[in-house]
Amino acid sequence: MPKLEKYEKKLDYSYALGLFPCMEAINKAPELVKRIVLNSEISSDALKTIENAAIKHSIRLEYADKLIKTISQKSNCFAAAVFEKNEPELDNKRNHIVLHNISDKGNLGTILRSALGFGFLDIAIIAPACDKFDPQVIRASMGAMFSMRVRDFASFEEYEDIYGERKLYPLMLDSSKSIESVLDEGEKPFSLILGNEGSGLPSEFKHKGQPIIIPHSTSIDSLNLSIAASIAMYLFSRHN
Amino acid sequence: MPKLEKYEKKLDYSYALGLFPCMEAINKAPELVKRIVLNSEISSDALKTIENAAIKHSIRLEYADKLIKTISQKSNCFAAAVFEKNEPELDNKRNHIVLHNISDKGNLGTILRSALGFGFLDIAIIAPACDKFDPQVIRASMGAMFSMRVRDFASFEEYEDIYGERKLYPLMLDSSKSIESVLDEGEKPFSLILGNEGSGLPSEFKHKGQPIIIPHSTSIDSLNLSIAASIAMYLFSRHN
Repeated sequence: MPKLEKYEKKLDYSYALGLFPCMEAINKAPELVKRIVLNSEISSDALKTIENAAIKHSIRLEYADKLIKTISQKSNCFAAAVFEKNEPELDNKRNHIVLHNISDKGNLGTILRSALGFGFLDIAIIAPACDKFDPQVIRASMGAMFSMRVRDFASFEEYEDIYGERKLYPLMLDSSKSIESVLDEGEKPFSLILGNEGSGLPSEFKHKGQPIIIPHSTSIDSLNLSIAASIAMYLFSRHN
Repeated sequence: MPKLEKYEKKLDYSYALGLFPCMEAINKAPELVKRIVLNSEISSDALKTIENAAIKHSIRLEYADKLIKTISQKSNCFAAAVFEKNEPELDNKRNHIVLHNISDKGNLGTILRSALGFGFLDIAIIAPACDKFDPQVIRASMGAMFSMRVRDFASFEEYEDIYGERKLYPLMLDSSKSIESVLDEGEKPFSLILGNEGSGLPSEFKHKGQPIIIPHSTSIDSLNLSIAASIAMYLFSRHN
Protein backbone atom coordinates (compact mmCIF):
# COMPACT_ATOMS: atom_id res chain seq x y z
CA MET A 1 0.00 0.00 0.00
CA PRO A 2 1.43 3.43 -0.96
CA LYS A 3 1.92 6.35 1.43
CA LEU A 4 -1.45 7.40 2.79
CA GLU A 5 -2.83 10.69 1.54
CA LYS A 6 -5.65 13.09 2.23
CA TYR A 7 -8.81 11.58 0.75
CA GLU A 8 -9.61 12.16 -2.90
CA LYS A 9 -12.12 10.37 -5.07
CA LYS A 10 -9.45 8.95 -7.37
CA LEU A 11 -7.78 6.95 -4.58
CA ASP A 12 -8.61 3.24 -4.39
CA TYR A 13 -8.93 3.39 -0.61
CA SER A 14 -10.73 5.61 1.90
CA TYR A 15 -11.01 6.20 5.64
CA ALA A 16 -13.54 5.33 8.32
CA LEU A 17 -12.91 8.12 10.82
CA GLY A 18 -13.78 7.92 14.50
CA LEU A 19 -13.95 5.02 16.94
CA PHE A 20 -17.43 3.79 16.09
CA PRO A 21 -17.13 3.79 12.27
CA CYS A 22 -13.62 2.33 12.61
CA MET A 23 -14.88 -0.55 14.77
CA GLU A 24 -17.73 -1.16 12.32
CA ALA A 25 -15.19 -1.47 9.51
CA ILE A 26 -13.03 -3.93 11.44
CA ASN A 27 -15.92 -6.07 12.64
CA LYS A 28 -18.22 -6.03 9.62
CA ALA A 29 -15.80 -5.83 6.70
CA PRO A 30 -12.37 -6.97 7.97
CA GLU A 31 -11.42 -8.18 4.47
CA LEU A 32 -11.46 -4.54 3.28
CA VAL A 33 -9.45 -3.03 6.13
CA LYS A 34 -5.79 -2.55 5.21
CA ARG A 35 -4.63 -0.93 8.41
CA ILE A 36 -5.71 1.08 11.44
CA VAL A 37 -4.15 4.45 12.23
CA LEU A 38 -4.34 5.89 15.74
CA ASN A 39 -3.94 9.24 17.43
CA SER A 40 -1.53 8.82 20.37
CA GLU A 41 -4.04 10.59 22.64
CA ILE A 42 -6.54 7.74 22.27
CA SER A 43 -7.97 6.55 25.62
CA SER A 44 -6.65 3.26 26.96
CA ASP A 45 -10.14 1.69 26.87
CA ALA A 46 -10.67 2.57 23.22
CA LEU A 47 -7.14 1.39 22.38
CA LYS A 48 -7.76 -1.98 24.03
CA THR A 49 -11.03 -2.48 22.12
CA ILE A 50 -9.42 -1.64 18.80
CA GLU A 51 -6.29 -3.70 19.51
CA ASN A 52 -8.33 -6.79 20.34
CA ALA A 53 -10.38 -6.49 17.16
CA ALA A 54 -7.30 -5.80 15.05
CA ILE A 55 -5.42 -8.80 16.43
CA LYS A 56 -8.43 -11.05 15.80
CA HIS A 57 -8.49 -10.05 12.14
CA SER A 58 -4.68 -9.68 11.70
CA ILE A 59 -4.91 -5.99 10.85
CA ARG A 60 -1.86 -3.77 11.30
CA LEU A 61 -2.09 -0.89 13.82
CA GLU A 62 0.08 2.21 13.80
CA TYR A 63 0.24 5.63 15.39
CA ALA A 64 -0.01 8.48 12.90
CA ASP A 65 -1.15 11.68 14.61
CA LYS A 66 -0.28 13.95 11.74
CA LEU A 67 -1.99 11.79 9.13
CA ILE A 68 -5.18 11.56 11.25
CA LYS A 69 -5.26 15.31 11.61
CA THR A 70 -4.79 15.74 7.86
CA ILE A 71 -7.48 13.28 6.85
CA SER A 72 -10.04 14.14 9.54
CA GLN A 73 -9.56 17.93 9.58
CA LYS A 74 -10.51 17.67 13.25
CA SER A 75 -8.44 17.53 16.39
CA ASN A 76 -10.64 15.06 18.22
CA CYS A 77 -10.45 12.05 15.92
CA PHE A 78 -8.63 9.19 17.63
CA ALA A 79 -8.78 6.34 15.16
CA ALA A 80 -9.30 5.65 11.49
CA ALA A 81 -9.62 2.47 9.46
CA VAL A 82 -7.98 2.55 6.04
CA PHE A 83 -10.18 0.45 3.78
CA GLU A 84 -10.17 -0.69 0.20
CA LYS A 85 -13.05 0.44 -2.00
CA ASN A 86 -15.38 -2.21 -3.38
CA GLU A 87 -18.43 -2.45 -5.66
CA PRO A 88 -20.49 -5.38 -4.38
CA GLU A 89 -23.35 -6.79 -6.44
CA LEU A 90 -26.81 -6.10 -5.10
CA ASP A 91 -29.00 -8.99 -3.96
CA ASN A 92 -31.74 -9.30 -6.56
CA LYS A 93 -34.05 -11.12 -4.15
CA ARG A 94 -34.16 -8.24 -1.68
CA ASN A 95 -35.77 -4.82 -1.66
CA HIS A 96 -33.54 -1.99 -2.91
CA ILE A 97 -33.19 1.72 -2.28
CA VAL A 98 -32.26 3.62 -5.44
CA LEU A 99 -30.75 7.08 -4.94
CA HIS A 100 -30.93 9.01 -8.19
CA ASN A 101 -28.38 11.85 -8.38
CA ILE A 102 -28.06 12.27 -4.61
CA SER A 103 -25.61 15.12 -4.03
CA ASP A 104 -25.27 15.73 -0.30
CA LYS A 105 -22.77 13.58 1.62
CA GLY A 106 -24.53 14.04 4.94
CA ASN A 107 -27.85 12.96 3.43
CA LEU A 108 -26.29 9.88 1.86
CA GLY A 109 -24.64 8.83 5.13
CA THR A 110 -27.82 9.41 7.12
CA ILE A 111 -29.87 7.42 4.59
CA LEU A 112 -27.43 4.49 4.82
CA ARG A 113 -27.71 4.51 8.62
CA SER A 114 -31.52 4.50 8.47
CA ALA A 115 -31.54 1.86 5.72
CA LEU A 116 -29.50 -0.54 7.84
CA GLY A 117 -31.77 0.16 10.80
CA PHE A 118 -34.85 -0.68 8.74
CA GLY A 119 -33.43 -3.75 7.03
CA PHE A 120 -32.65 -2.38 3.56
CA LEU A 121 -29.19 -3.72 2.83
CA ASP A 122 -29.00 -3.07 -0.93
CA ILE A 123 -28.48 0.47 -2.18
CA ALA A 124 -28.06 1.66 -5.77
CA ILE A 125 -26.56 5.08 -6.42
CA ILE A 126 -27.24 6.55 -9.87
CA ALA A 127 -24.61 8.96 -11.25
CA PRO A 128 -24.04 11.87 -11.18
CA ALA A 129 -23.96 11.62 -7.41
CA CYS A 130 -21.72 12.34 -4.45
CA ASP A 131 -18.88 9.93 -3.71
CA LYS A 132 -20.16 7.11 -1.47
CA PHE A 133 -16.64 6.48 -0.16
CA ASP A 134 -16.02 10.04 1.00
CA PRO A 135 -15.04 9.92 4.70
CA GLN A 136 -17.90 12.35 5.45
CA VAL A 137 -20.40 9.82 4.08
CA ILE A 138 -18.84 6.96 6.05
CA ARG A 139 -18.92 9.03 9.22
CA ALA A 140 -22.52 10.24 8.76
CA SER A 141 -23.49 6.59 8.13
CA MET A 142 -21.80 5.61 11.44
CA GLY A 143 -20.07 2.89 9.47
CA ALA A 144 -23.39 1.39 8.29
CA MET A 145 -21.91 0.96 4.82
CA PHE A 146 -19.70 -1.90 6.05
CA SER A 147 -22.80 -4.01 6.70
CA MET A 148 -24.46 -3.30 3.35
CA ARG A 149 -24.12 -3.61 -0.40
CA VAL A 150 -23.82 -0.14 -1.94
CA ARG A 151 -23.17 0.04 -5.67
CA ASP A 152 -22.75 2.84 -8.22
CA PHE A 153 -24.52 2.84 -11.60
CA ALA A 154 -23.74 5.11 -14.53
CA SER A 155 -27.46 5.60 -15.29
CA PHE A 156 -30.90 4.42 -14.20
CA GLU A 157 -31.04 2.37 -17.41
CA GLU A 158 -27.96 0.45 -16.32
CA TYR A 159 -29.65 -0.34 -13.00
CA GLU A 160 -32.95 -1.22 -14.70
CA ASP A 161 -31.29 -3.58 -17.18
CA ILE A 162 -29.99 -5.72 -14.35
CA TYR A 163 -32.64 -5.30 -11.64
CA GLY A 164 -35.69 -3.84 -13.39
CA GLU A 165 -37.96 -6.90 -13.12
CA ARG A 166 -39.49 -5.82 -9.86
CA LYS A 167 -42.01 -3.35 -8.50
CA LEU A 168 -40.71 0.24 -8.65
CA TYR A 169 -41.90 2.96 -6.26
CA PRO A 170 -40.53 6.38 -7.25
CA LEU A 171 -41.12 8.97 -4.51
CA MET A 172 -42.47 12.04 -6.32
CA LEU A 173 -44.01 15.26 -5.02
CA ASP A 174 -46.60 15.37 -7.80
CA SER A 175 -47.88 11.87 -7.22
CA SER A 176 -51.43 11.63 -5.88
CA LYS A 177 -50.90 8.16 -4.40
CA SER A 178 -50.01 8.12 -0.70
CA ILE A 179 -47.30 5.70 0.35
CA GLU A 180 -49.71 4.30 2.92
CA SER A 181 -52.05 3.11 0.21
CA VAL A 182 -49.42 0.81 -1.33
CA LEU A 183 -48.02 -0.73 1.86
CA ASP A 184 -50.43 -3.63 1.77
CA GLU A 185 -49.70 -4.52 -1.84
CA GLY A 186 -46.97 -6.73 -0.45
CA GLU A 187 -45.11 -7.00 -3.75
CA LYS A 188 -41.58 -8.20 -3.18
CA PRO A 189 -38.93 -7.51 -4.04
CA PHE A 190 -39.41 -3.82 -4.76
CA SER A 191 -37.22 -0.77 -5.30
CA LEU A 192 -37.93 2.54 -3.59
CA ILE A 193 -36.49 5.33 -5.78
CA LEU A 194 -35.55 8.79 -4.50
CA GLY A 195 -34.39 11.84 -6.44
CA ASN A 196 -31.95 14.71 -6.01
CA GLU A 197 -32.21 17.07 -3.00
CA GLY A 198 -33.09 20.12 -5.05
CA SER A 199 -34.82 18.84 -8.16
CA GLY A 200 -36.35 15.50 -7.16
CA LEU A 201 -36.80 12.77 -9.77
CA PRO A 202 -37.04 13.67 -13.49
CA SER A 203 -40.60 13.57 -14.84
CA GLU A 204 -40.04 10.33 -16.80
CA PHE A 205 -40.19 8.47 -13.49
CA LYS A 206 -43.95 9.11 -13.54
CA HIS A 207 -44.07 6.14 -15.89
CA LYS A 208 -41.83 3.87 -13.85
CA GLY A 209 -43.90 1.59 -11.65
CA GLN A 210 -46.13 3.31 -9.07
CA PRO A 211 -45.13 6.85 -8.05
CA ILE A 212 -45.95 7.57 -4.39
CA ILE A 213 -45.87 10.55 -2.03
CA ILE A 214 -45.39 11.02 1.71
CA PRO A 215 -48.30 13.24 2.79
CA HIS A 216 -47.32 16.57 4.41
CA SER A 217 -48.91 19.99 4.68
CA THR A 218 -48.52 22.60 1.95
CA SER A 219 -46.67 24.84 4.45
CA ILE A 220 -43.42 23.30 3.25
CA ASP A 221 -42.24 22.67 -0.29
CA SER A 222 -40.79 19.25 0.45
CA LEU A 223 -39.20 17.17 3.17
CA ASN A 224 -35.43 16.90 3.50
CA LEU A 225 -34.29 13.94 1.36
CA SER A 226 -32.89 11.85 4.21
CA ILE A 227 -36.13 12.43 6.15
CA ALA A 228 -38.36 11.39 3.25
CA ALA A 229 -36.22 8.31 2.55
CA SER A 230 -36.24 7.27 6.21
CA ILE A 231 -39.99 7.70 6.70
CA ALA A 232 -40.64 5.64 3.57
CA MET A 233 -38.21 2.90 4.63
CA TYR A 234 -39.70 2.83 8.12
CA LEU A 235 -43.23 2.41 6.76
CA PHE A 236 -42.24 -0.36 4.36
CA SER A 237 -40.22 -2.12 7.07
CA ARG A 238 -43.26 -2.24 9.34
CA HIS A 239 -45.44 -3.81 6.65
CA ASN A 240 -43.07 -6.50 5.46
CA MET B 1 -30.45 49.48 13.74
CA PRO B 2 -26.66 49.45 14.18
CA LYS B 3 -24.14 48.48 11.51
CA LEU B 4 -24.74 44.85 10.50
CA GLU B 5 -22.14 42.33 11.65
CA LYS B 6 -21.21 38.72 11.14
CA TYR B 7 -23.67 36.64 13.16
CA GLU B 8 -22.98 36.00 16.81
CA LYS B 9 -25.33 34.67 19.45
CA LYS B 10 -25.22 37.88 21.48
CA LEU B 11 -26.73 39.98 18.67
CA ASP B 12 -30.45 40.78 18.92
CA TYR B 13 -30.95 40.09 15.22
CA SER B 14 -30.01 37.32 12.80
CA TYR B 15 -30.09 36.48 9.09
CA ALA B 16 -32.27 34.34 6.86
CA LEU B 17 -29.83 33.50 4.06
CA GLY B 18 -30.88 32.47 0.58
CA LEU B 19 -33.89 33.31 -1.56
CA PHE B 20 -36.32 30.77 -0.15
CA PRO B 21 -35.67 31.37 3.57
CA CYS B 22 -35.60 35.12 2.89
CA MET B 23 -39.03 35.02 1.19
CA GLU B 24 -40.41 32.93 4.05
CA ALA B 25 -39.25 35.59 6.51
CA ILE B 26 -40.86 38.41 4.51
CA ASN B 27 -44.14 36.60 3.90
CA LYS B 28 -44.62 34.78 7.19
CA ALA B 29 -43.06 37.13 9.74
CA PRO B 30 -42.85 40.59 8.10
CA GLU B 31 -43.09 42.26 11.53
CA LEU B 32 -39.66 40.81 12.42
CA VAL B 33 -37.86 41.72 9.18
CA LYS B 34 -35.81 44.89 9.55
CA ARG B 35 -34.31 44.98 6.09
CA ILE B 36 -33.34 42.90 3.08
CA VAL B 37 -29.78 42.81 1.80
CA LEU B 38 -29.02 41.72 -1.75
CA ASN B 39 -26.06 40.53 -3.77
CA SER B 40 -25.87 42.61 -6.96
CA GLU B 41 -25.60 39.39 -9.00
CA ILE B 42 -29.15 38.37 -8.05
CA SER B 43 -31.25 37.29 -11.06
CA SER B 44 -33.88 39.74 -12.28
CA ASP B 45 -36.70 37.27 -11.57
CA ALA B 46 -35.63 36.74 -7.99
CA LEU B 47 -35.14 40.47 -7.55
CA LYS B 48 -38.67 41.21 -8.78
CA THR B 49 -40.18 38.63 -6.41
CA ILE B 50 -38.31 40.01 -3.43
CA GLU B 51 -39.00 43.65 -4.39
CA ASN B 52 -42.73 43.03 -4.65
CA ALA B 53 -42.88 41.35 -1.26
CA ALA B 54 -40.69 44.03 0.33
CA ILE B 55 -42.84 46.86 -1.04
CA LYS B 56 -46.00 45.16 0.19
CA HIS B 57 -44.62 45.01 3.73
CA SER B 58 -42.69 48.32 3.61
CA ILE B 59 -39.34 46.65 4.16
CA ARG B 60 -36.13 48.41 3.11
CA LEU B 61 -33.98 46.79 0.42
CA GLU B 62 -30.29 47.43 -0.14
CA TYR B 63 -27.34 45.99 -2.02
CA ALA B 64 -24.53 44.80 0.24
CA ASP B 65 -22.34 42.27 -1.57
CA LYS B 66 -19.54 42.36 0.95
CA LEU B 67 -21.85 41.95 3.94
CA ILE B 68 -23.63 38.99 2.33
CA LYS B 69 -20.33 37.29 1.66
CA THR B 70 -19.24 37.89 5.25
CA ILE B 71 -22.42 36.57 6.82
CA SER B 72 -23.04 33.66 4.46
CA GLN B 73 -19.42 32.50 4.02
CA LYS B 74 -20.55 31.42 0.56
CA SER B 75 -20.25 33.03 -2.82
CA ASN B 76 -23.64 31.94 -4.13
CA CYS B 77 -25.97 33.61 -1.62
CA PHE B 78 -28.04 36.30 -3.32
CA ALA B 79 -30.35 37.59 -0.63
CA ALA B 80 -30.68 37.74 3.14
CA ALA B 81 -33.42 38.98 5.44
CA VAL B 82 -32.21 40.72 8.59
CA PHE B 83 -34.70 39.82 11.31
CA GLU B 84 -35.24 40.62 14.95
CA LYS B 85 -35.10 37.74 17.41
CA ASN B 86 -38.27 36.89 19.31
CA GLU B 87 -39.41 34.44 22.00
CA PRO B 88 -43.07 33.69 21.27
CA GLU B 89 -45.23 31.90 23.83
CA LEU B 90 -46.20 28.36 22.91
CA ASP B 91 -49.86 27.50 22.34
CA ASN B 92 -50.90 25.39 25.31
CA LYS B 93 -53.82 23.85 23.42
CA ARG B 94 -51.60 22.33 20.74
CA ASN B 95 -49.15 19.43 20.63
CA HIS B 96 -45.53 20.36 21.30
CA ILE B 97 -42.12 19.06 20.30
CA VAL B 98 -39.59 19.38 23.13
CA LEU B 99 -35.92 19.24 22.12
CA HIS B 100 -33.80 18.54 25.19
CA ASN B 101 -30.17 19.68 24.79
CA ILE B 102 -30.19 19.45 21.00
CA SER B 103 -26.70 20.41 19.85
CA ASP B 104 -26.50 20.14 16.06
CA LYS B 105 -27.70 23.12 14.02
CA GLY B 106 -28.46 21.06 10.93
CA ASN B 107 -30.57 18.64 12.96
CA LEU B 108 -32.51 21.49 14.57
CA GLY B 109 -33.22 23.13 11.22
CA THR B 110 -34.27 19.84 9.63
CA ILE B 111 -36.56 19.05 12.58
CA LEU B 112 -38.25 22.47 12.27
CA ARG B 113 -38.86 21.87 8.55
CA SER B 114 -40.41 18.45 9.23
CA ALA B 115 -42.41 19.80 12.17
CA LEU B 116 -44.02 22.46 10.01
CA GLY B 117 -44.74 19.85 7.34
CA PHE B 118 -46.47 17.59 9.87
CA GLY B 119 -48.42 20.34 11.64
CA PHE B 120 -46.39 20.75 14.83
CA LEU B 121 -46.10 24.52 15.20
CA ASP B 122 -44.92 24.74 18.82
CA ILE B 123 -41.35 23.83 19.67
CA ALA B 124 -39.61 24.03 23.06
CA ILE B 125 -35.82 23.99 23.21
CA ILE B 126 -34.32 23.06 26.58
CA ALA B 127 -30.86 24.54 27.38
CA PRO B 128 -28.02 23.83 26.97
CA ALA B 129 -28.72 23.67 23.25
CA CYS B 130 -27.54 25.12 19.97
CA ASP B 131 -28.67 28.64 19.05
CA LYS B 132 -32.03 28.47 17.26
CA PHE B 133 -31.36 31.81 15.55
CA ASP B 134 -28.05 30.77 14.02
CA PRO B 135 -28.25 31.37 10.23
CA GLN B 136 -27.32 27.70 9.66
CA VAL B 137 -30.45 26.63 11.58
CA ILE B 138 -32.67 29.07 9.67
CA ARG B 139 -31.25 27.85 6.40
CA ALA B 140 -31.58 24.13 7.21
CA SER B 141 -35.18 24.85 8.29
CA MET B 142 -35.81 26.49 4.87
CA GLY B 143 -37.32 29.39 6.82
CA ALA B 144 -39.87 27.12 8.57
CA MET B 145 -39.17 28.92 11.83
CA PHE B 146 -41.03 32.02 10.57
CA SER B 147 -44.29 30.05 10.53
CA MET B 148 -43.86 28.55 14.00
CA ARG B 149 -43.50 29.33 17.68
CA VAL B 150 -40.03 28.26 18.86
CA ARG B 151 -39.09 29.10 22.45
CA ASP B 152 -36.04 28.54 24.66
CA PHE B 153 -36.32 27.23 28.22
CA ALA B 154 -33.53 27.24 30.81
CA SER B 155 -34.51 23.74 32.02
CA PHE B 156 -37.14 21.04 31.52
CA GLU B 157 -38.60 22.07 34.90
CA GLU B 158 -39.23 25.56 33.56
CA TYR B 159 -41.09 24.06 30.59
CA GLU B 160 -42.99 21.62 32.80
CA ASP B 161 -44.10 24.33 35.22
CA ILE B 162 -45.89 26.15 32.42
CA TYR B 163 -46.95 23.35 30.07
CA GLY B 164 -46.63 20.13 32.12
CA GLU B 165 -50.35 19.34 32.41
CA ARG B 166 -50.47 17.20 29.32
CA LYS B 167 -49.44 13.78 28.10
CA LEU B 168 -45.64 13.45 27.77
CA TYR B 169 -44.01 11.03 25.32
CA PRO B 170 -40.22 10.92 25.82
CA LEU B 171 -38.51 9.05 22.96
CA MET B 172 -36.02 6.69 24.66
CA LEU B 173 -33.92 3.84 23.31
CA ASP B 174 -34.49 1.70 26.41
CA SER B 175 -38.27 1.97 26.32
CA SER B 176 -40.12 -1.25 25.49
CA LYS B 177 -43.24 0.56 24.25
CA SER B 178 -43.42 1.05 20.50
CA ILE B 179 -44.64 4.43 19.29
CA GLU B 180 -47.24 2.60 17.21
CA SER B 181 -48.91 1.23 20.32
CA VAL B 182 -49.69 4.72 21.67
CA LEU B 183 -50.94 6.34 18.47
CA ASP B 184 -54.53 5.41 19.15
CA GLU B 185 -54.54 6.75 22.69
CA GLY B 186 -55.63 10.02 21.13
CA GLU B 187 -54.66 12.10 24.16
CA LYS B 188 -54.37 15.74 23.21
CA PRO B 189 -52.54 17.93 23.65
CA PHE B 190 -49.32 15.99 24.11
CA SER B 191 -45.60 16.73 24.06
CA LEU B 192 -43.13 14.55 22.18
CA ILE B 193 -39.74 14.86 23.91
CA LEU B 194 -36.39 14.14 22.21
CA GLY B 195 -32.90 14.10 23.69
CA ASN B 196 -29.39 15.03 22.70
CA GLU B 197 -27.76 13.54 19.55
CA GLY B 198 -25.07 11.67 21.44
CA SER B 199 -26.52 10.91 24.85
CA GLY B 200 -30.30 10.85 24.36
CA LEU B 201 -32.59 11.81 27.24
CA PRO B 202 -31.36 11.55 30.84
CA SER B 203 -32.72 8.50 32.69
CA GLU B 204 -35.15 10.54 34.82
CA PHE B 205 -37.34 10.89 31.74
CA LYS B 206 -38.29 7.24 32.26
CA HIS B 207 -40.70 8.57 34.85
CA LYS B 208 -42.12 11.39 32.72
CA GLY B 209 -45.33 10.26 31.05
CA GLN B 210 -45.02 7.32 28.64
CA PRO B 211 -41.54 6.63 27.19
CA ILE B 212 -41.74 5.28 23.62
CA ILE B 213 -39.34 3.88 21.02
CA ILE B 214 -39.24 3.78 17.22
CA PRO B 215 -38.56 0.12 16.35
CA HIS B 216 -35.40 -0.53 14.34
CA SER B 217 -32.97 -3.43 13.99
CA THR B 218 -30.09 -3.94 16.38
CA SER B 219 -27.66 -3.45 13.48
CA ILE B 220 -27.56 0.25 14.35
CA ASP B 221 -27.16 1.89 17.75
CA SER B 222 -29.75 4.56 17.12
CA LEU B 223 -31.35 6.66 14.40
CA ASN B 224 -30.11 10.14 13.58
CA LEU B 225 -32.03 12.60 15.80
CA SER B 226 -33.74 14.48 12.98
CA ILE B 227 -34.80 11.15 11.44
CA ALA B 228 -36.25 9.84 14.71
CA ALA B 229 -38.06 13.13 15.37
CA SER B 230 -39.52 13.23 11.86
CA ILE B 231 -40.72 9.62 11.84
CA ALA B 232 -42.42 10.18 15.21
CA MET B 233 -44.05 13.43 14.07
CA TYR B 234 -45.19 11.81 10.84
CA LEU B 235 -46.83 8.91 12.68
CA PHE B 236 -48.60 11.18 15.17
CA SER B 237 -49.73 13.51 12.37
CA ARG B 238 -51.39 10.61 10.55
CA HIS B 239 -53.31 9.53 13.65
CA ASN B 240 -54.63 12.89 14.78
